[in-house]
Amino acid sequence: MGMALKQARLSNTEVVGTSRDRDELTVATKVGAVDKAESNLRAAVEGAQLVILNATIADTKELLENLGPALEDGCVVTDTGSMKLRAIEWAEASLPKGVSFVGGHPLIKKSLRSMQDADHTVFQNIAYCVIPAKSADQESVKTVVGLVEMLGAKPLFMDAHEHDSYAVAMTQLPIVMSAAYVTATAGSPAWREMHRLAASEFREFSALAAGDPLDNETACLANAEEMVRWLDQLILELYSYRNQIAERSDSLIDALIKAWEARARWEAGAVVEDNSRPTLPSASESMAMAFFGERLVSRYKQMKDKDDKKSWKYTKR
Amino acid sequence: MGMALKQARLSNTEVVGTSRDRDELTVATKVGAVDKAESNLRAAVEGAQLVILNATIADTKELLENLGPALEDGCVVTDTGSMKLRAIEWAEASLPKGVSFVGGHPLIKKSLRSMQDADHTVFQNIAYCVIPAKSADQESVKTVVGLVEMLGAKPLFMDAHEHDSYAVAMTQLPIVMSAAYVTATAGSPAWREMHRLAASEFREFSALAAGDPLDNETACLANAEEMVRWLDQLILELYSYRNQIAERSDSLIDALIKAWEARARWEAGAVVEDNSRPTLPSASESMAMAFFGERLVSRYKQMKDKDDKKSWKYTKR
Repeated sequence: MGMALKQARLSNTEVVGTSRDRDELTVATKVGAVDKAESNLRAAVEGAQLVILNATIADTKELLENLGPALEDGCVVTDTGSMKLRAIEWAEASLPKGVSFVGGHPLIKKSLRSMQDADHTVFQNIAYCVIPAKSADQESVKTVVGLVEMLGAKPLFMDAHEHDSYAVAMTQLPIVMSAAYVTATAGSPAWREMHRLAASEFREFSALAAGDPLDNETACLANAEEMVRWLDQLILELYSYRNQIAERSDSLIDALIKAWEARARWEAGAVVEDNSRPTLPSASESMAMAFFGERLVSRYKQMKDKDDKKSWKYTKR
Repeated sequence: MGMALKQARLSNTEVVGTSRDRDELTVATKVGAVDKAESNLRAAVEGAQLVILNATIADTKELLENLGPALEDGCVVTDTGSMKLRAIEWAEASLPKGVSFVGGHPLIKKSLRSMQDADHTVFQNIAYCVIPAKSADQESVKTVVGLVEMLGAKPLFMDAHEHDSYAVAMTQLPIVMSAAYVTATAGSPAWREMHRLAASEFREFSALAAGDPLDNETACLANAEEMVRWLDQLILELYSYRNQIAERSDSLIDALIKAWEARARWEAGAVVEDNSRPTLPSASESMAMAFFGERLVSRYKQMKDKDDKKSWKYTKR
């Protein structure tokens, strides 16, 4: 974000970066993400008009508590986390009256695992949730919307409860899947031999389990009821696949096609159909073409379906 | 692999690429992965001494059938797939007597999703399974081992049954996880709204569900008994996490730490301990340092444990 802000060449603006990790500050300076690196938190925010927190939920509380007394009247604080209810609650408890908190959540699709992955283009055309605290004034919301637009992202206004409930399925459920996958495989007596066959699939599906366990625990418990509901749903689905595989059922391919369709619609930004335009019979075909080329298109043929003309149907060769 | 072979500047060697996708051939030529692109399969392998198949398991059978009559005596055929029993079975049924099949499986840790990700360094220092058909002669095994070593990888000899059974957990189980995750979330009535919050976590965990459903079906059923066994294990683990989350149990953090440890050991290549050297009390500490820096090390303290001195223990702050 620092890189993107610097690219925008804002006049009268200084980008100051702070972190308790000195190496991060060195890299931030080297890649040109900050005008100034300041290891002291309160010194870094002195006189700031906009403070952007990028921390785990576990650290956000402490940060807000430490920042509170250092912020000047009229300052706007935003964050980038995936849990908004708690961040807003802590901000309202810790920030002084003249300081507004407007939560943010950029829905970055690229995995950024380290500072070396920093890329100022990841904000372009993504949705960016903007969720103000009740106490935030209108000007502060404008400030954060201005930031979002400067980054090239699209502001998405959403209720904090709604946001957090959806974020469980989209962001936190994969953490539990990752941890369960690692425990299931690495806990096996075969692991000493089997781990030699771990390649990109294992690396990707286990990556979230490599996160700080305390942060992962917080993510699991932040919205425990929702998490349990999603885990139940996931277990049901896995059990259904399990039975279809055990029975070598013909319906397995239908389930896999359903998943493929849903993923392709998401990738194409076509989850919600545009009903104002007539559904072209070739829509799914051209979309599949874009993704998989001729080979798959020759397999997937859209069939007429009186119940749901919009669904994509598949015929076996 | 073509790029790596060309980098090696072999004398008297021509790298010929073929694909039924003409775009792939264009890219392969552009990135310098082949000396010659040939769209006709049989013409491409004419006079070849080594043929490297890189195809899904579903296509490998057809490829071997089509190739058989075109190969010359003394030719060696290898592949790069994650299922070796079937590939060997089909090769023995389709290839003529003078042609040897030596299965290969490079355990590449980087995700290569498209031709644009091509990178000749992905083979360096990885394990590369070499699994000859029973009918393969010694010279053909030497040829494939030579290829593996030229790529900078380390040959790993393994029984085909053993390989395929482990590959289910390491390569094919994530496909089912990915599909089940997509069906569970995209099948929800909330999906129309929720999908807007899908970011890198959703993209990564749903990526395998975006593969050709027919290939994914083949992957699920290729070793159905093993797959069912691993799915049962995974469901048990997920159910255990589910209950720990529902009860907000103190043991949740222990499970997450266990997963973190196993992942860190794998990443560090330290799954199998070197018992010839004494276990240093600082081993886990320095390893954690390498991964997470001071912050995590200050949290993770190795405690004495009379039952298992090698396990890493954790103390809450």
